[in-house]
Amino acid sequence: MSILHLCDQPVASVALGATCAEAIQVMLDRRVGAVCMVDGDGKPAGIFTERDVLRKLALSGLDPKQVMVREYMTANLDMATMKTTPGEAFAAMINTHYRHLPVVNDDGVLLGILSIRNLLQAKIDDLTQQLDSIETAMSNDAPGGD
Amino acid sequence: MSILHLCDQPVASVALGATCAEAIQVMLDRRVGAVCMVDGDGKPAGIFTERDVLRKLALSGLDPKQVMVREYMTANLDMATMKTTPGEAFAAMINTHYRHLPVVNDDGVLLGILSIRNLLQAKIDDLTQQLDSIETAMSNDAPGGD
Repeated sequence: MSILHLCDQPVASVALGATCAEAIQVMLDRRVGAVCMVDGDGKPAGIFTERDVLRKLALSGLDPKQVMVREYMTANLDMATMKTTPGEAFAAMINTHYRHLPVVNDDGVLLGILSIRNLLQAKIDDLTQQLDSIETAMSNDAPGGD
Repeated sequence: MSILHLCDQPVASVALGATCAEAIQVMLDRRVGAVCMVDGDGKPAGIFTERDVLRKLALSGLDPKQVMVREYMTANLDMATMKTTPGEAFAAMINTHYRHLPVVNDDGVLLGILSIRNLLQAKIDDLTQQLDSIETAMSNDAPGGD
């Protein structure tokens, strides 16, 4: 299964020229914790999260309508592609301490944002399914089992 | 294993009379996404999260130093006790759509705050351990296995 299936759709993004207020509004509207800034080609230039709001804005006294999100986003992003496995995506997030990872196509265009929560939930579903399969196989093998 | 072992320690809390700025500062200092408001007896009166900062403050124009967290916290909390299982805690979080659950002792005093992320990670560890046990048992049972 592609990691894109684990991303909330449609993808939460704003133009690179957006204000922090516009980026926050997208997070609120989509009920997500991160939004990507994309350039004119749809390629991710940065990511801005609810954690950034807490760390960089909440106590700053700045008006989010008056400041550009490009000044507060995280640039130089790690990104995943359609070939990235859930395990690789998880390792990247653990290494960087980020909770979100943009997913791009072969041209670098943003397709989705993977959250560590969706990834953890998918891992649980996968492990549970493996356990269920083994239990079914064992009960079929058991003498006199029905 | 008690769910208290899954909580970040020490617990992030502020007095019920704190400002939003003080609550935000505790979240930043402890690197957590939620803080409990406690009364004079140490009992949780509410919870305030980074999502609340995004939803209630970020676009409000309010100064967090000038507003009391009791006005913006979520009161009437679901709470877990030492007897609550991880499964019950998870169900409570899914039902309420909250990502954090205070854990209290028999007197109702706050002991910790359980996050859904820690809970998901613990579930993965548990399932992985179950799978490993089965694989070990099967390889021991296998004819000619070593």
